[in-house]
Amino acid sequence: MNDIRVLKFGGSSVKNIGRIEHVADIIASYKPHPVVVVVSAMGDTTDHLLNLAKQCSTTPDQRELDLLLSTGEQVSIVLLSLILKRKGLSAKSLTGQQAGISTTDEHGSARILDIDSELIKKELVNHDVVVVAGFQGVTEDGQITTLGRGGSDTTAVALAAALNARECDIYTDVDGVFTADPNVIKEAVPLKEIGYAQCVTLARSGAQVIHPRAVELGEQYDVVVRVRNTFNPSNRGTEIKGDREVERQKQFCGVAVDKNQGFISISKPKEAFNLLRELTECLSSCGVSVEHIRQTSKIEPGIDGGTVQICFQYKEKHQVSEAVSLLCEKYSDSTVCSELDLCKVTLVGSSSQGSAQAAVRLIGTLEENEIEVKSIRASDLAISCLVEKSKAQQAARRIHEEFKLSSDFDSTESRELSLTA
Amino acid sequence: MNDIRVLKFGGSSVKNIGRIEHVADIIASYKPHPVVVVVSAMGDTTDHLLNLAKQCSTTPDQRELDLLLSTGEQVSIVLLSLILKRKGLSAKSLTGQQAGISTTDEHGSARILDIDSELIKKELVNHDVVVVAGFQGVTEDGQITTLGRGGSDTTAVALAAALNARECDIYTDVDGVFTADPNVIKEAVPLKEIGYAQCVTLARSGAQVIHPRAVELGEQYDVVVRVRNTFNPSNRGTEIKGDREVERQKQFCGVAVDKNQGFISISKPKEAFNLLRELTECLSSCGVSVEHIRQTSKIEPGIDGGTVQICFQYKEKHQVSEAVSLLCEKYSDSTVCSELDLCKVTLVGSSSQGSAQAAVRLIGTLEENEIEVKSIRASDLAISCLVEKSKAQQAARRIHEEFKLSSDFDSTESRELSLTA
Repeated sequence: MNDIRVLKFGGSSVKNIGRIEHVADIIASYKPHPVVVVVSAMGDTTDHLLNLAKQCSTTPDQRELDLLLSTGEQVSIVLLSLILKRKGLSAKSLTGQQAGISTTDEHGSARILDIDSELIKKELVNHDVVVVAGFQGVTEDGQITTLGRGGSDTTAVALAAALNARECDIYTDVDGVFTADPNVIKEAVPLKEIGYAQCVTLARSGAQVIHPRAVELGEQYDVVVRVRNTFNPSNRGTEIKGDREVERQKQFCGVAVDKNQGFISISKPKEAFNLLRELTECLSSCGVSVEHIRQTSKIEPGIDGGTVQICFQYKEKHQVSEAVSLLCEKYSDSTVCSELDLCKVTLVGSSSQGSAQAAVRLIGTLEENEIEVKSIRASDLAISCLVEKSKAQQAARRIHEEFKLSSDFDSTESRELSLTA
Repeated sequence: MNDIRVLKFGGSSVKNIGRIEHVADIIASYKPHPVVVVVSAMGDTTDHLLNLAKQCSTTPDQRELDLLLSTGEQVSIVLLSLILKRKGLSAKSLTGQQAGISTTDEHGSARILDIDSELIKKELVNHDVVVVAGFQGVTEDGQITTLGRGGSDTTAVALAAALNARECDIYTDVDGVFTADPNVIKEAVPLKEIGYAQCVTLARSGAQVIHPRAVELGEQYDVVVRVRNTFNPSNRGTEIKGDREVERQKQFCGVAVDKNQGFISISKPKEAFNLLRELTECLSSCGVSVEHIRQTSKIEPGIDGGTVQICFQYKEKHQVSEAVSLLCEKYSDSTVCSELDLCKVTLVGSSSQGSAQAAVRLIGTLEENEIEVKSIRASDLAISCLVEKSKAQQAARRIHEEFKLSSDFDSTESRELSLTA
């Protein structure tokens, strides 16, 4: 039982019976390996169920929602199993609970605590394929939980880890992890390989291809995660693996765009000692995740008390707008500025070396193209800048071009240089 | 916790969000009683899921089907809970498994083995309403099962029994148990009360209103089952209870029509010692349930060996037709006759006394109306006759009329007479 293969097929891969048939053929091609398949709900089932729930309650209970949403995967595992059986493979479907996936009780965003891998191993004795419902698990006291959007990726990698599989194939509807969103930037190309850390950074910066938590788990348990295309299964896709296993490390591997970025700046009123706490409390209450805070102080009597600047990502614009209006009212003596129609464009690289240099190049590129950079931040693996929403895709395209992300090699700087810089 | 009310709402009662809202209002009217509600899948969800499965496999595995079908109820319990909460009741939904419903492992037609009533009682400490998925349970080793069509009725009565509730209200889309199918016979009236045994007989003879297994459970555990109308909740409906509790026992309480009845007769070939076994094997292999077998023997040398006659109910006519063709071929020397377009019309009564007399009256009525009686059988509580399908509803109407089933009292014979006859 050493070469178990773990595969995952997303919602678009199992959108209808025809597609599930196709998925079954891909699974059959893994024979004679024992296969564990994780599937998502069919197409837009999850959205449909959420919509039903919203018709019942504007504030649906998350525990109930999990019970509702988990039915989506329960349907697709059965349909896939039935088709596999018809095609002559012995298959059995398991819910998250039946597959022994224990989670925390944070409904809607539960984390996998443990997988009783013996349950699946037992089924693999008598079955070619075990089909497991992604995205779901069960708490210690029998409550059904979901892992949050993209959770099926996490289920798959966690199962691969628990079953000591060396690889986990995540089937999606594109050829792998791209250097940029191929729907927007035609020049974007799929990467043959990428390090875990770079992939996590890309995913967290707005790239949609795989859930970052899944990649982190892969890194933690040394599982090579391969992103492949259901509709082009002969393509080898992108291998996500350890930095040292990546053969041809590129200094820059991709550019990603993240929407719903905002920025608020407030001049400190004289006697507002709790300003920062008040601001963050106010913002977090409207679904905002704070990404960066900057505070300047000029504490001289008679002069204003400096400014607080907060960069954040929001979910619903109208909520943030309301919060900003409230703040303007409350601090009517101060100057409150905000910009809500921003995007974050992030260039992801393989090392922090040379990032200052790269930041200069990036700013230069954007300025040449008359794209105003509202803010810029460089971290270990990435350089991010905030730009107007309307300019974001243009910015990404220019960066993609400037840093020659489509080319197989770094033509601007050799790997040796980047390592020793 | 002594006056827990157990209610059940069928698929048509929870067909869409609007109807679930209405159901929630009915549930709210039971306050301050703690309420356990059993719900079926919304509208034709079960058929829709079955159809999906059939697209995947013409012979879907029953264990997988159960996993699939159980999602239907899992959706409706959540939606009802969300609406109840929005209306200010504290509600929690439970799957069959979470409600502690253990069943046998006969997938598709599992029987409830045990209910761990402590699980629901615990939830009722903190909740006004517990919503339980009908029709489903779980085996000892965690496999999800279904109880077969109509299983939600059974779930409800079993829960009432386990929770020591004295009554169980089964909400459906008619005013109760009728003296005949009100869609066909306008004169049919709902019964105020009916004994368990009579109701089981009616249900097993083709009346659709409640699942016979649920009534049997009611009898076994002394739970009064009340059939009520979701769309006319002020009506008290029909009480199904013990014979001795029925205040005004009517000698005849209803007439039912059962479709898909057939009849085969074969003259015994000389050397067919296993004929009966062969016949029943052949019929049962095509989804037929044998209701009655009659064998006549004339074992004199040189004369034919008598005949075998079998009355049965089938599921798919084409399957039985094929089986009959095969038999005709095989026994080409014998005479094989069959009639497949028959219906069984059953008059259900309260006692076996006077049934011979009633049978005479029934035959007379049908003959007067030129309806040919193919076969007739009287049992303890019922007189059944086979007639042409095209004449079945007319036969039921005439019997309904002759035995004055619409009238509140037996005007033809007093109760005393029927008891002492």
